[in-house]
Amino acid sequence: MIVALSGGIGGAKLALGLAHVHDPAELLIVANTGDDFTHLGLAISPDIDTLLYTLAGLDNPDLGWGRRDETWAAMETLEALGGETWFRLGDRDLALHLARTEMLRAGHTLAAVTDRLRRRLGVTPRILPASDDPVRTRLDTDQGELDFQEYFVHRRCVPAVRAIAFAGAATARPLPAVIDAIATAEAVVICPSNPFISIDPILAVPGLRAALAATPAPVVAVSPLIGGRAVKGPTAKMMSELGLPVTAGAVAAHYADLLDFFVADPDDAAALAEIDASVVAAPTLMRSLADKQALARIVLAAAGVPVLSRTGG
Amino acid sequence: MIVALSGGIGGAKLALGLAHVHDPAELLIVANTGDDFTHLGLAISPDIDTLLYTLAGLDNPDLGWGRRDETWAAMETLEALGGETWFRLGDRDLALHLARTEMLRAGHTLAAVTDRLRRRLGVTPRILPASDDPVRTRLDTDQGELDFQEYFVHRRCVPAVRAIAFAGAATARPLPAVIDAIATAEAVVICPSNPFISIDPILAVPGLRAALAATPAPVVAVSPLIGGRAVKGPTAKMMSELGLPVTAGAVAAHYADLLDFFVADPDDAAALAEIDASVVAAPTLMRSLADKQALARIVLAAAGVPVLSRTGG
Repeated sequence: MIVALSGGIGGAKLALGLAHVHDPAELLIVANTGDDFTHLGLAISPDIDTLLYTLAGLDNPDLGWGRRDETWAAMETLEALGGETWFRLGDRDLALHLARTEMLRAGHTLAAVTDRLRRRLGVTPRILPASDDPVRTRLDTDQGELDFQEYFVHRRCVPAVRAIAFAGAATARPLPAVIDAIATAEAVVICPSNPFISIDPILAVPGLRAALAATPAPVVAVSPLIGGRAVKGPTAKMMSELGLPVTAGAVAAHYADLLDFFVADPDDAAALAEIDASVVAAPTLMRSLADKQALARIVLAAAGVPVLSRTGG
Repeated sequence: MIVALSGGIGGAKLALGLAHVHDPAELLIVANTGDDFTHLGLAISPDIDTLLYTLAGLDNPDLGWGRRDETWAAMETLEALGGETWFRLGDRDLALHLARTEMLRAGHTLAAVTDRLRRRLGVTPRILPASDDPVRTRLDTDQGELDFQEYFVHRRCVPAVRAIAFAGAATARPLPAVIDAIATAEAVVICPSNPFISIDPILAVPGLRAALAATPAPVVAVSPLIGGRAVKGPTAKMMSELGLPVTAGAVAAHYADLLDFFVADPDDAAALAEIDASVVAAPTLMRSLADKQALARIVLAAAGVPVLSRTGG
């Protein structure tokens, strides 16, 4: 089993690559739930959804979020009725949230609901939260304390971040299936997601960090920064606001003792100061499926895991 | 002020006619809320919605419910995800329920929410529930005790009805604006809606029946039956199951002492046994807008209320 810790879009790209170069039934993706929130009464799990859509081939390549072939009749109507429309919910996406919310209300766990949605969408790799209990990212900013989506979507990451907290993390119970999978994995991959708001909420669940530290499996992280820039999202801006150098090295340092291997773009790898992990220099920008597969192969090769014979590009 | 008590489609047709032949700003429609229910976490008020859509010119003439120009992406997706789809919610209709549910959750009353939606949809006549408190129609049937929508939509009115109850009615507080409007109305119209499941839930709210009995305004009811048949819905089947003759006379008798005038189709009017109200024979089938206006004129004429000069057909 390969275990991948992932946020949304960047992580989902590598997860898709992994699902193509390794037996997808032997891939477990632990998804960030720090972005989860309740909006219009709907339980929304943006990173789980991005993983579901990406792995089902339903992701929207134009928007970078939401579903392919989406329509917006409900949002248009909600706007006409004076409802809240700053968080855009397509008609098909809305249905996923309705289904999830209804199952949660019926008493199913987030893990069980996510698994049912995954199967319904024909996704083979398992996708699980680190915990069924809510872990919610809250940002202390120059505009005050903000819930994640208020910062991320409503205010478009404009506020300067001073500190980050994960409400609920201290008492969240880790999912035994996740702890067990990490303990017995062939490899653990930390996807090129934002370390502070996509991976840290996972690591904040009690037992997760210890499981990663204790696993005999190699732990491989991929840098989300390329040449001091994030491919997408506020990683670079946030690092700068947090007083960190905006470098792959700072990302590696953030994961510190957890890592066995750190994959960074060649220029970034060359500039890396000495770190505790072995550095692997490789192109990390993933535009095509071939890019995703190539990076997945490099990650698995670093971990010493055999890959499937070349498929696709 | 004209006050009209109304259920869904038949009542909404007459309400639209009234809005065309009388100052629509002087029309208050008291809507049945016995059909209201929570589905997929959404607060749905089918009769209020039918009134809103009909009076906004947004009603769906093909379906007889829901919105015109509707799309079904969310329902299609919900079905693919294994969600509940027996109650069909179009994408635009869904937005109305999301908006209503969110406003109710924020603490607004059903009356306030309905008023806000009405204004947003550009509807001039006021639409109010008889009470902000829930009144829910429950049917005792040969298939057991059923919630209204379970009987009406899910089981397509197949179960035989033995008795009808209105949960919550005994403790529901009447809306003062409705009681006052009835007391000071020029006329009260009981629309051609199902007496047992559309009008009775309104009359079951404490104070409503007394207000109708006490008002100096003429009370005019329109028969929902034509030649022993309902234009739409289970009225005839239900009357038969309740052991009543399936006649306009039985409808008039049901309203008994409340009525001053009873409007029925000519053949039905001729066959009416002596009742306490004055009988007005007139065509009651409303296909076109002209039909609706014509019936509205007859209703207001019976009540002695002046009508606007002829508009439309």
